[in-house]
Amino acid sequence: MAHHSRTLASLRVSPGKPALIAARDPGGTLGWDKESAAAGLEEARSRLAQLHQLLWAENKHAVLVVLQGMDTSGKDGVIRHVMTGVDPQGCKVTAFKRPSEEEADHAYLWRIVKALPARGDIGIFNRSHYEDVLIARVRSLVPEKEWRARYDQINTFEKLLVDNGTTVLKFFLHISKEEQKKRLQDRLDDPTKNWKFSMQDLEERKLWDRYMEAYEEALSRCSTPYAPWYIIPSDRKWVRNLAISRIIVETMESLGLEWPRPAFDPKSVVIE
Amino acid sequence: MAHHSRTLASLRVSPGKPALIAARDPGGTLGWDKESAAAGLEEARSRLAQLHQLLWAENKHAVLVVLQGMDTSGKDGVIRHVMTGVDPQGCKVTAFKRPSEEEADHAYLWRIVKALPARGDIGIFNRSHYEDVLIARVRSLVPEKEWRARYDQINTFEKLLVDNGTTVLKFFLHISKEEQKKRLQDRLDDPTKNWKFSMQDLEERKLWDRYMEAYEEALSRCSTPYAPWYIIPSDRKWVRNLAISRIIVETMESLGLEWPRPAFDPKSVVIE
Repeated sequence: MAHHSRTLASLRVSPGKPALIAARDPGGTLGWDKESAAAGLEEARSRLAQLHQLLWAENKHAVLVVLQGMDTSGKDGVIRHVMTGVDPQGCKVTAFKRPSEEEADHAYLWRIVKALPARGDIGIFNRSHYEDVLIARVRSLVPEKEWRARYDQINTFEKLLVDNGTTVLKFFLHISKEEQKKRLQDRLDDPTKNWKFSMQDLEERKLWDRYMEAYEEALSRCSTPYAPWYIIPSDRKWVRNLAISRIIVETMESLGLEWPRPAFDPKSVVIE
Repeated sequence: MAHHSRTLASLRVSPGKPALIAARDPGGTLGWDKESAAAGLEEARSRLAQLHQLLWAENKHAVLVVLQGMDTSGKDGVIRHVMTGVDPQGCKVTAFKRPSEEEADHAYLWRIVKALPARGDIGIFNRSHYEDVLIARVRSLVPEKEWRARYDQINTFEKLLVDNGTTVLKFFLHISKEEQKKRLQDRLDDPTKNWKFSMQDLEERKLWDRYMEAYEEALSRCSTPYAPWYIIPSDRKWVRNLAISRIIVETMESLGLEWPRPAFDPKSVVIE
């Protein structure tokens, strides 16, 4: 496990240092091989299911997993392949799309707060408050002064979460522009995937470089000791799934979860 | 499959007829054997995951699964064992506990409506609006006149749901009083299960016969052609899981789900 831990730690963006997304290989294998990855994923998923039962029973901590990445980077796939086996009672997924009128009438963190996981739950954010420094910046949805202020606000917000018992893990699913092209083409070619294709994705693709700039600043400024960002090589789905599942498992192992002791003496109870 | 369908159909409470819970065997095996049940469950779960992807892609129907049963009857277990493998994005579980003050200040269906699954989603109710004719009746939480009016209201409410695209399946997890005793004792004896034990469960157990009366009336009056009740023999967990998973699968098969056709010509799209 020590070996894995070192590999996984290399994916973490060191607080206060630049994320250097462009210098990282989205096609890397982390020294793993595809043949043994399936068994590794199965093992991690099974351990995750056990840890989730403990988390649920203990009812002290919440876990929040934030997934960000360009279209086709695999946010939906991670939820399907990594979180399968986790008890759906106690696993709450929220996809943040274009804000509703009611949401847009509130501060950007309002809808985020409403979706936070309860104690005992694993919450998954499919996109998140980071959109408010990503698309909001790239598409100038708010004045620069406003999105510039958000990096510090987000760090403050996440500190509050962590201080109140939520473990926060943030994953950037890093794919190459070439790989995105392949995946978009696949959505066009495969009739069972047509429904996933949106013309809007092509518009976003044109802004690829500006999105990378926005990600670089978000990950550099908002990877903190208490709520780290991980950059996950995601051109290969099996690397992506294995890395994320192992990071979640290792993090939850470190919580020291325990079966709660009863407030009564079980031996003294008689069932009629 | 026809053979299974007949077996499964026998679990359905015929609309307008008495449910006859007491005449049904909670320990029945439905002619299945435990050895092949594991493979059967695996097959049903895998098919369920596929159907859920179609449901999600098509985005026309919602599925609502209502789970009711005495303490230890296996509501949590069904969610964990049957729904595992279903994409947690698009599977929304709501456990209805004692109403909050805000909920109690509203009509009993208010919190139910708020928790309904969206199109494309499978919603699971761990307990439901049926508590409002079960515990509300047994413990006289509201005047008799009030809970008596609810059977018709519930039928009307569920008709509205069905007419607006939600498929409603209701399962009563039928266990014997003896089996409940074993399971409660197990929660006392096994330190990893102590947290599941509640003294309140013993109080409810004392009211077993009155709960069975309340269930008998609820299932008899609210099993409709559009939203049927199924009485699931649940003393054996493997029978319970297999029966429920197969009923959900057969019902979803009957929806005629299809991959949606794109609104554009995929061949005409060029990705830069």
